[in-house]
Amino acid sequence: MKKIAISIGDLNGIGLEIALRSHNEVKKHCYPLYCINENMLGWGAALLGLDVPSDFEIRDCGKVFEIEPGVCSAEAGESSYDSFITAVALAKSNEVSGIVTLPINKESWAMAGLEYKGHTDALSDLLGCEAIMMLGCEEMFTILYTHHIPLRDVPHEIKAKKLKPFLLKVYEELGAERIAVLGLNPHAGDHGVIGDEDAEIEKAILKVNHFLEREVFVGPLVPDIAFSKNNRENFTYFVCMYHDQGLIPLKTLYFDESINVSLNAGVVRTSVDHGTAFDIAYKEGNPSCLSYINAIKEAVKLSSGKEPLLTF
Amino acid sequence: MKKIAISIGDLNGIGLEIALRSHNEVKKHCYPLYCINENMLGWGAALLGLDVPSDFEIRDCGKVFEIEPGVCSAEAGESSYDSFITAVALAKSNEVSGIVTLPINKESWAMAGLEYKGHTDALSDLLGCEAIMMLGCEEMFTILYTHHIPLRDVPHEIKAKKLKPFLLKVYEELGAERIAVLGLNPHAGDHGVIGDEDAEIEKAILKVNHFLEREVFVGPLVPDIAFSKNNRENFTYFVCMYHDQGLIPLKTLYFDESINVSLNAGVVRTSVDHGTAFDIAYKEGNPSCLSYINAIKEAVKLSSGKEPLLTF
Repeated sequence: MKKIAISIGDLNGIGLEIALRSHNEVKKHCYPLYCINENMLGWGAALLGLDVPSDFEIRDCGKVFEIEPGVCSAEAGESSYDSFITAVALAKSNEVSGIVTLPINKESWAMAGLEYKGHTDALSDLLGCEAIMMLGCEEMFTILYTHHIPLRDVPHEIKAKKLKPFLLKVYEELGAERIAVLGLNPHAGDHGVIGDEDAEIEKAILKVNHFLEREVFVGPLVPDIAFSKNNRENFTYFVCMYHDQGLIPLKTLYFDESINVSLNAGVVRTSVDHGTAFDIAYKEGNPSCLSYINAIKEAVKLSSGKEPLLTF
Repeated sequence: MKKIAISIGDLNGIGLEIALRSHNEVKKHCYPLYCINENMLGWGAALLGLDVPSDFEIRDCGKVFEIEPGVCSAEAGESSYDSFITAVALAKSNEVSGIVTLPINKESWAMAGLEYKGHTDALSDLLGCEAIMMLGCEEMFTILYTHHIPLRDVPHEIKAKKLKPFLLKVYEELGAERIAVLGLNPHAGDHGVIGDEDAEIEKAILKVNHFLEREVFVGPLVPDIAFSKNNRENFTYFVCMYHDQGLIPLKTLYFDESINVSLNAGVVRTSVDHGTAFDIAYKEGNPSCLSYINAIKEAVKLSSGKEPLLTF
């Protein structure tokens, strides 16, 4: 069974509760190693009225500070960052096969003087990679070619030259033999009548398939029917040109069960697809553990027998 | 019971079969008046091996020509246009309460020298209006602020000054007291961090609500969670900024049952949300009648007790 490091997230949020409540389920899939300060674990569990399981193995890290449920603070930000970098270090040194991250609070990170927008950003910086965002669940994954940029900037990014290495990286990371690629414009441009970017997407697909010597990438799909039931039966992976093209259908269909995966990060990293939920932290709000359990399963899957397939 | 004119669509496609097969169901909801040449009706029904019901009331129009299943032709184009303008004239003269259109073939229209891109386009020209596209089904309707334009042109259209009268028209047409409006950018711009267009949308919403003296429009909603189950329980109508923002979630959830509605057209007009399906025409392909039945129901609903609520 694989060993997976869990970064515990912001201790003023719901991360610890999810970790404690899911432990029995999680250990069916991997040996979890929780990155948390031992005293903070005891304190948090007491606040939650939960016992710490006897086999709850930890890697002690970070400082002791006062838990204030639902509050942003520099101490909480620093503590969640310490947990994260401890997990990353464990993965880099191959002590674990991958990491699963519980949610941090961006404002607390900022208060702690950390300039990253989130885990993916920090990971890219720490490991010198360009992490690719993939979100989804077993039924369907969307891979975002562009993500947190204004919609007006998206069309400029649609160039075959730039898309080609992206698609190759996606193939290298996933090893899937059939990956859908969406067009950009209504009706995928309707043969150039509604915009010319879809021709660039087609060019990139043809070139990559030619290089791979088989039809791995299929598209550009007409975006509005890309996620029809029929297409979802034919594809699991969908490369999307912009944030909402992928996340609208995903969150419409699979709001609770979705996870976040960093591809091309040098280490296997998955994450829950929700935030710290400060409004229900330490309040018997019974947070959903579905995204976390799915993140664990995917981390195990991605770290099993994975080999680099291509180099550039 | 309301009288509804049915334009029969392209006679080389599946329109006539849908009309004949659905007649018994349709007459539960309205008095249908079918716009079709009497001889063509007899011929088409014979080709389909279907009887023409005794109460299948027609408005005789258009010429006789040879039915060629699945073939584009000027005659078929002209015939479907004749059926359409007959239905429009019936609605304009208040002989019927609304019209439902079965699919035409754009290539056949072009062969007949008709330059319109489709029904909505023709309707706007015939009635001197600017028809608004709404697509959906009972569970959820999406209203498209922009539609068949390249994605790169969408952000330029997002101006409060232009969006405001659009929202007022939508309210006038629907009379709904709660209408969602989506943002444009990821996370609805994240307070201006990811694009500034969402501030324009917010401005338009505030102004329109102020004018209406109540909170009819709600938004700008974060696009990727706008269609979550929870939001779909709270809203039926969603104003979307671009084609795929509305049609991706709609076709992902409700591919077969969706219909097309022209708002602000001067007459009530609904339509099936599929094409002529030439591949299965006159072939015992058993076309789905769900979109057509839903279009009938919505036309009846829209024509019942509707009064103009606002003038500009």
